[in-house]
Amino acid sequence: SVVVEARYSADWSSLDSRPLPSWFDEAKLGIFVHWGVFSVPGFGSEWFWWHWQGQQPPDPNCVSFMKQNYPPGFSYPEFAPQFHAQFFDPGQWADIFKASGAYVVLTSKHHEGFTTWGSPFSWNWNSVDTGPHKDLVGDLGEAVRNSLHYGLYNSLYEWFNPLYLIDKKNGFKTQEYVVKKLLPEMYNMVVYKPEVIWSDGDWEAPDTYWNSTAFLAWLYNDSPVKDTVVTNDRWGAGCACKHGGYYNCEDKYTPGQLPKHKWEKCTSVDTRSWGYRRNMRLNELMDLPTIIKDLVQTVALGGNYLLYVGPTADGTIPVVFEERLRGVGAWLQTNGEAIYASKPWRVQYENSTLPIFTSKDSSVYAVVTVKPPKSIVQLLAPKTSTDTKVTLLGNSKPLSWSPLLPSAGLTVLLPELPDTPGQAWTLKL
Amino acid sequence: SVVVEARYSADWSSLDSRPLPSWFDEAKLGIFVHWGVFSVPGFGSEWFWWHWQGQQPPDPNCVSFMKQNYPPGFSYPEFAPQFHAQFFDPGQWADIFKASGAYVVLTSKHHEGFTTWGSPFSWNWNSVDTGPHKDLVGDLGEAVRNSLHYGLYNSLYEWFNPLYLIDKKNGFKTQEYVVKKLLPEMYNMVVYKPEVIWSDGDWEAPDTYWNSTAFLAWLYNDSPVKDTVVTNDRWGAGCACKHGGYYNCEDKYTPGQLPKHKWEKCTSVDTRSWGYRRNMRLNELMDLPTIIKDLVQTVALGGNYLLYVGPTADGTIPVVFEERLRGVGAWLQTNGEAIYASKPWRVQYENSTLPIFTSKDSSVYAVVTVKPPKSIVQLLAPKTSTDTKVTLLGNSKPLSWSPLLPSAGLTVLLPELPDTPGQAWTLKL
Amino acid sequence: SVVVEARYSADWSSLDSRPLPSWFDEAKLGIFVHWGVFSVPGFGSEWFWWHWQGQQPPDPNCVSFMKQNYPPGFSYPEFAPQFHAQFFDPGQWADIFKASGAYVVLTSKHHEGFTTWGSPFSWNWNSVDTGPHKDLVGDLGEAVRNSLHYGLYNSLYEWFNPLYLIDKKNGFKTQEYVVKKLLPEMYNMVVYKPEVIWSDGDWEAPDTYWNSTAFLAWLYNDSPVKDTVVTNDRWGAGCACKHGGYYNCEDKYTPGQLPKHKWEKCTSVDTRSWGYRRNMRLNELMDLPTIIKDLVQTVALGGNYLLYVGPTADGTIPVVFEERLRGVGAWLQTNGEAIYASKPWRVQYENSTLPIFTSKDSSVYAVVTVKPPKSIVQLLAPKTSTDTKVTLLGNSKPLSWSPLLPSAGLTVLLPELPDTPGQAWTLKL
Amino acid sequence: SVVVEARYSADWSSLDSRPLPSWFDEAKLGIFVHWGVFSVPGFGSEWFWWHWQGQQPPDPNCVSFMKQNYPPGFSYPEFAPQFHAQFFDPGQWADIFKASGAYVVLTSKHHEGFTTWGSPFSWNWNSVDTGPHKDLVGDLGEAVRNSLHYGLYNSLYEWFNPLYLIDKKNGFKTQEYVVKKLLPEMYNMVVYKPEVIWSDGDWEAPDTYWNSTAFLAWLYNDSPVKDTVVTNDRWGAGCACKHGGYYNCEDKYTPGQLPKHKWEKCTSVDTRSWGYRRNMRLNELMDLPTIIKDLVQTVALGGNYLLYVGPTADGTIPVVFEERLRGVGAWLQTNGEAIYASKPWRVQYENSTLPIFTSKDSSVYAVVTVKPPKSIVQLLAPKTSTDTKVTLLGNSKPLSWSPLLPSAGLTVLLPELPDTPGQAWTLKL
Repeated sequence: SVVVEARYSADWSSLDSRPLPSWFDEAKLGIFVHWGVFSVPGFGSEWFWWHWQGQQPPDPNCVSFMKQNYPPGFSYPEFAPQFHAQFFDPGQWADIFKASGAYVVLTSKHHEGFTTWGSPFSWNWNSVDTGPHKDLVGDLGEAVRNSLHYGLYNSLYEWFNPLYLIDKKNGFKTQEYVVKKLLPEMYNMVVYKPEVIWSDGDWEAPDTYWNSTAFLAWLYNDSPVKDTVVTNDRWGAGCACKHGGYYNCEDKYTPGQLPKHKWEKCTSVDTRSWGYRRNMRLNELMDLPTIIKDLVQTVALGGNYLLYVGPTADGTIPVVFEERLRGVGAWLQTNGEAIYASKPWRVQYENSTLPIFTSKDSSVYAVVTVKPPKSIVQLLAPKTSTDTKVTLLGNSKPLSWSPLLPSAGLTVLLPELPDTPGQAWTLKL
Repeated sequence: SVVVEARYSADWSSLDSRPLPSWFDEAKLGIFVHWGVFSVPGFGSEWFWWHWQGQQPPDPNCVSFMKQNYPPGFSYPEFAPQFHAQFFDPGQWADIFKASGAYVVLTSKHHEGFTTWGSPFSWNWNSVDTGPHKDLVGDLGEAVRNSLHYGLYNSLYEWFNPLYLIDKKNGFKTQEYVVKKLLPEMYNMVVYKPEVIWSDGDWEAPDTYWNSTAFLAWLYNDSPVKDTVVTNDRWGAGCACKHGGYYNCEDKYTPGQLPKHKWEKCTSVDTRSWGYRRNMRLNELMDLPTIIKDLVQTVALGGNYLLYVGPTADGTIPVVFEERLRGVGAWLQTNGEAIYASKPWRVQYENSTLPIFTSKDSSVYAVVTVKPPKSIVQLLAPKTSTDTKVTLLGNSKPLSWSPLLPSAGLTVLLPELPDTPGQAWTLKL
Repeated sequence: SVVVEARYSADWSSLDSRPLPSWFDEAKLGIFVHWGVFSVPGFGSEWFWWHWQGQQPPDPNCVSFMKQNYPPGFSYPEFAPQFHAQFFDPGQWADIFKASGAYVVLTSKHHEGFTTWGSPFSWNWNSVDTGPHKDLVGDLGEAVRNSLHYGLYNSLYEWFNPLYLIDKKNGFKTQEYVVKKLLPEMYNMVVYKPEVIWSDGDWEAPDTYWNSTAFLAWLYNDSPVKDTVVTNDRWGAGCACKHGGYYNCEDKYTPGQLPKHKWEKCTSVDTRSWGYRRNMRLNELMDLPTIIKDLVQTVALGGNYLLYVGPTADGTIPVVFEERLRGVGAWLQTNGEAIYASKPWRVQYENSTLPIFTSKDSSVYAVVTVKPPKSIVQLLAPKTSTDTKVTLLGNSKPLSWSPLLPSAGLTVLLPELPDTPGQAWTLKL
Repeated sequence: SVVVEARYSADWSSLDSRPLPSWFDEAKLGIFVHWGVFSVPGFGSEWFWWHWQGQQPPDPNCVSFMKQNYPPGFSYPEFAPQFHAQFFDPGQWADIFKASGAYVVLTSKHHEGFTTWGSPFSWNWNSVDTGPHKDLVGDLGEAVRNSLHYGLYNSLYEWFNPLYLIDKKNGFKTQEYVVKKLLPEMYNMVVYKPEVIWSDGDWEAPDTYWNSTAFLAWLYNDSPVKDTVVTNDRWGAGCACKHGGYYNCEDKYTPGQLPKHKWEKCTSVDTRSWGYRRNMRLNELMDLPTIIKDLVQTVALGGNYLLYVGPTADGTIPVVFEERLRGVGAWLQTNGEAIYASKPWRVQYENSTLPIFTSKDSSVYAVVTVKPPKSIVQLLAPKTSTDTKVTLLGNSKPLSWSPLLPSAGLTVLLPELPDTPGQAWTLKL
């Protein structure tokens, strides 16, 4: 853990100077769990409420879904009592997450404002007072804490919170919402000792409205997680890709070249939603090879990879998500050496069908995501010496190779590649 | 309306000096409507939540009721979506209240904290966001305003509000709840221009905790109802019967002799509950003669009479309550002259079976609540002269009478008394 | 009990010859309880399903009620699980019915087909399998049997039973419904030993379709209630007022003069519905004096009076109905001598404001339903002798009277009439 | 289609002599869809009702599940209104089934008795009257009929049907249930023209109770599907593996050697349930290689393979099942030649790790389900000639091979085997 000598002041230049606790860059892979009242309709996406009743004009699919299936006047808060989570087994979830080899981030409160813990500032609109009648944040934290890093997502804004709407109407010159609701709740939330605070919903107002810098200064100086917590960059309009901890920039952000600042790509197995959709179909999901290729490319460019899965309102992780997560984990069993604690290499990838590189210490790793036609791989970038040894991860036998060009490159003769649902193999040089 | 020259300051001596707007003492009869989420279980009383989950030990009837009829873990907030109020017809309610000849006080928020209007400080725990999806306070106000005085009940404390519980735990040395929730909401509530603010739930904390005097000073000085509003005396521990507007003292308070301060007796048709009970029985209700006798006795002692009825979660006033209210109104059609705007007389009543007296201007009214056996009534207290005229309200024909004692009293020969479901007749002297 | 020597054959001439068990004519007053799934919507009337989805065009109020309050596609059978009857206390019901001094008839199955007992021929569409999870017929029977006569209403047709609809489509030339459902169920129902079988829903098909005569022959010859059971006249198109036991003729039937055959008037406290309506209003209900006058007129003309009350889906009898029933009972406490086991007199009533006559043995009873202006009643029809004694029921003191005309009639000087909510007083001659 | 010259009589020797319509043996693969009210609790298995309330002692997991999640007294029929099927898209289902290359069998009625079509003999206990408000049997039939063979599962017994229980109590000497419910419904069901009638629930009573032979005689002689329908062998206690059409023998039946009679193995992706379980986990499901190996082994032994998937009460096929079905279909795209319309070969398989054989015309197919270590496969059973050609399905290039033993067998040199999620490759000889 980092020893913090100096205290941070509540301004970006000080806050941005904080070194990122090292565990985060080493961890590389996270699982993002979007769970809330939106899991009950499980329709469209976790933005259902907004699409149905917020945006103008509303999404006709959402409007029609409600018309077809609910009585007139049924309101979103009335979904909450149907959020039963009756099959929620934190130990089983932890087992899946551990098998996937990732850290975990749970929505403690999405834009709907419903907290998945018993926030005293969100009375009767939290998972203890209604619905599950459980401290979801606490129960999952309990189950994963000893083995995984555990973070919490928190939305700054709440679409329909009347106090927020008052401030918004006032051009964010008042802070009714921030003072009465948001900040007390955020300070309170830290009792769960989150190692990530994944902030979101910041874009409508400047960080000065949210009091973000003061919160972060407290978080870094005085909170119980001051030494280990990492945060992202969603702390006010204009902060993304510029201030905070690591950068998310935007959803599913994929940089064209190696970024200078630690970043994280968040993406979702279900390509259409971050949250559970009851009517998702197979062809809307990423398959395992796609996920692994995406993970490797992200890591090669220095990013962390945060993969979303949406549990059901019943409290289960749909089996197809479990399959993906365990598939990633199985692939990492063999290939994790090239991922965990790796560093971007001089070259990240040569072209879209050729290997992707990572490095650690003096090793270079080349991940092959397309099975080469003739058991031969040509790598252009590495410079070899006579000491260069090449192996396939999962197989200790050295492979025969020969230089490709005078200055660089090599040709490796592959063994029979083992079948892997991940469809990717790693050469270690 | 009263012209207020001076401003009130936020202390009791100033506030208590405010003259009570005159409409209140003249009105005499009010209807108190207890409506909220408690109307959904409709069991025990409107204190259901507390009896079930607050008090220690809990009421075994409530615990057993929940066990028998709801799944384990079902929580009180989950009743709210079943508060449909689908038959709520404010015009029809207004018609009943008008027929009863009363002012109306509606619960804007009971101890459960659920507001029957869209309070921005009670998000998702109010009748607009969930349940009825209606502004009950506003809709009823609209319907009655032109013809009746309209007041609002407001509970200061909320049994289970976590902010309140924090303050309580802190010995009411913090004001999280008051500052973040209670006061903003109370100021906001006055937009409905209530002519009564019937405060309740004050007893656990001193008025200094509730900031009662500041609120009242604002209410009397600057609010839109400053000239007409009346309040009661529940503004903090120790205030009852001592500070505020008129006095309620305690529920169903019945003074032994003529009080010096204007007071109001609140009581309920259903003797076991102020709110609707689905399983109420006939023998638990006051019948009409009992209500009328109670009303007359209260008025004789200078009080107002506030009678509770509990609507259903469906939005109807149970027919038996409608019958009682219309019965009172029918009786007042004939006998209201002795009630409305009357003043207590020198003698209030002679003994329990004898007439009850009120007065107005130079008239004295004697209300007979037991039909005299031989069509003769003896009144001891009035002093007669030869000009004394005696009539029966509803009948313009003078009655023959004769002095009873040398100094006072008279014997009146009654006509055949008309049948009246109220079982009370008024002699005017 | 009657000793039946001969057996009845399955034809009307034989069946119609059966003497009516004597208890029925003596009982005079019955309470009809309409309870079923229709109590859940509690809207319109117990014909809700038909008005909503059967008749063409449907009732727009019912259609709109469903549209406003239920999701599209919600079907009538889905009301059943909300028929909780959680407050059903048969002992309490029995107490009310006993206080009213009546026999009781409960719907064992209305036109909706839902049986209020666990009929094996109505699987999953009865009160044991779904909703109350109780044998309502049995539980109430148990509670009343020792003190009251207990009957069952049974609808022959079921609006939407697909087997019935097949037969109907076939012009009632097939008997799928009768053979597979109706008859087995009716025989089975007699296990509850009903002393009235109140048949209904017969009018669309002839008695030959329903196999009515065979059922009645069995009922009269071999059933466990053969000696005591009475039935009405709804046993097939054309039977009403012509065949069966006593005659109902039509709903709320009121004959102009003394019928020759024993009959029964069925009518309802709620003038708009036989079943519970959640939104009933006071002015739609009969008040007590109206009920009593109607009862007396019916009895004077030789009829029994069957008064409907509709319990709620919660299992309670609305208090206003309890009040009516106890009011009738209280009146009968004093005046029952003129009602129970009385016989029609030579003259039934003189005109609409004058007394109504009944008789028993050598006594004649004149029921006065309008308080006479001057404490004097003139009766035209009775022929007096010097032995004639006149009393007011409830008061043993003989009243002074004098002959009115040479041939008949008398003038009675009334005492002060006691107040009675029933507004009717009985003179016994 | 088969021309039936003679009529079958209602006895087993005649019925058993009917040749099986040829489409069935050619089809090899079927999808079995278990859908019903049991999909609502989605707990334990489709036998939930029985495990909860039928068997003695009841399954404590089921009892506890109900206790934890439902109010006391909640009954199984009350699940039906929650069977919404709101996302049911028959076209989408058909698309999945077609992609899997299978015929489809849907539960028209499971042991719970709920029909997934509007059976007139199952009023208010079918998918049209309550729950989905849809003709599930008809809608799916419509969607698949032009491209797939479509069959219906039908349970003879109904655990809790009171008529069945009467017969059972009578030692099956009465036929109340069969005459009033079962048979009329079965005849009626054939209006959907099922090409399979998958009978079940026969074992408690002899075929003479069920009237099975009469039904089958009608089905084979006079029904609209007489030429194409196939049935199984569950037509009464003792019939399994002995009478009827093809044999199921028992669930998941796997014969040790080549049976003489056409048979079908039914098995389930979810190894713990035939119906949907909301809390199923990945390790409880068969993965694709397991399914394909099982399919091939079954076909090699002359069986059809009927694979169960359980849709949700919402009307979706869980994505993991879609993945399995499409995976099987993808494998069959390449390897179907060895499966569809194949015949068992002289040798079915050599040992558990060696290839499995099927044949068609003069070809022999050897399916390899374990990737051979050195790209070499040895087959012992085939006898080669110089004309023998060996290819890998999906690749037209002839493979080099050499005889293994003087009398029989060959060694095949494999090409690089393509990756396939099914993990099985087919050699054609």
